[in-house]
Amino acid sequence: MKIAIPIFDRFTALDAVGPYEVLSRLPGATVHFLAAEPGPKRTETGMLALTADLALDELTSPEIVVVPGGFGTRELMGDEQILDWLRRAHETSGWTTSVCTGSLLLAAAGLLDGLEATTHWLALDALREYGARPVERRVVEHPEARIITSAGVSAGIDMALTLAARIAGDELARAIQLGIEYDPEPPFDSGSTAKATPEIIALVRGASGRLA
Amino acid sequence: MKIAIPIFDRFTALDAVGPYEVLSRLPGATVHFLAAEPGPKRTETGMLALTADLALDELTSPEIVVVPGGFGTRELMGDEQILDWLRRAHETSGWTTSVCTGSLLLAAAGLLDGLEATTHWLALDALREYGARPVERRVVEHPEARIITSAGVSAGIDMALTLAARIAGDELARAIQLGIEYDPEPPFDSGSTAKATPEIIALVRGASGRLA
Repeated sequence: MKIAIPIFDRFTALDAVGPYEVLSRLPGATVHFLAAEPGPKRTETGMLALTADLALDELTSPEIVVVPGGFGTRELMGDEQILDWLRRAHETSGWTTSVCTGSLLLAAAGLLDGLEATTHWLALDALREYGARPVERRVVEHPEARIITSAGVSAGIDMALTLAARIAGDELARAIQLGIEYDPEPPFDSGSTAKATPEIIALVRGASGRLA
Repeated sequence: MKIAIPIFDRFTALDAVGPYEVLSRLPGATVHFLAAEPGPKRTETGMLALTADLALDELTSPEIVVVPGGFGTRELMGDEQILDWLRRAHETSGWTTSVCTGSLLLAAAGLLDGLEATTHWLALDALREYGARPVERRVVEHPEARIITSAGVSAGIDMALTLAARIAGDELARAIQLGIEYDPEPPFDSGSTAKATPEIIALVRGASGRLA
């Protein structure tokens, strides 16, 4: 089973690495990081590079697609190379998925037209502009459309465990959860706009993307 | 504020990237990935490479150290270059921390002698052999010793939020939690040995590290 994670400059590392850490544990799975131009791709901060080992055209029919987000998505909203790759990959994929603002790329490719979908909470309006129906949920699954979108950054771990269960069954997904010891104990309860105070929400909104 | 994340071949990506995603959002922080030999370092699966931009001797006095785990730690347990770097970095660091089996390296460097510490649940016995007192907790903090250890893989996110609060205060840590939308909703409740069934625990134990 080939799993494709397309990356690009100014992506968010955890969007890609959370699902990688879950899905790479599926029996028979190989995760491929790929990009228009193979090589190191830097995150938004510039502090970290992940390597894209393949070019997009070297893997056009993956069984699973996971599209991470990040500010770099904005520059790709009109990039026909990546959008066309997504459209073609989705023709044959078992599941096409996104984390955070990765859903903006799925939407720009026309894959979310009229569908409920999610993204980072700061990007819900942008998602609407591209034809999806944004909802504030952590994971939004459409089995008939073979699409799953997830909320910001860390939500990719929850999405990938959901996906692992669809692919390999609940028992194996539970084993992977134990393997990565995903028994979250955040020291605060401030991880969504429903739970954070207005002051904290304003702090993140006002930080020009430095905190989001 | 310089934050050092030493990486090595056969490390676990999420161990490093979870804390990176939190700590890179601290005001004035720069996260440096470093290694004995700079360049791409591959994870245990070989499917993903992160780039170490600096050599260990290019950054010997970071304010924060985060040591990830992975099977590659085993080959480094007698590697004086990394162990000596850890000892020297800890002399001046504000906090020296680990995720997963990264604590085995801290223990091998002598930094956990007699201290309560944690690691991936499958490595608790190994941690004892190196002089620490293993405990099954998600995050174990020693303010006086300036050391924090955390449990397996995904626990680094919780550890890093705890650390962010120590460094920059609760309000900023809460803002970072909202920024990365860390409001976990795992689809199962199987993330620790206290919660998983005996069958799931046996499945992970029997998988020769493929699931852990």
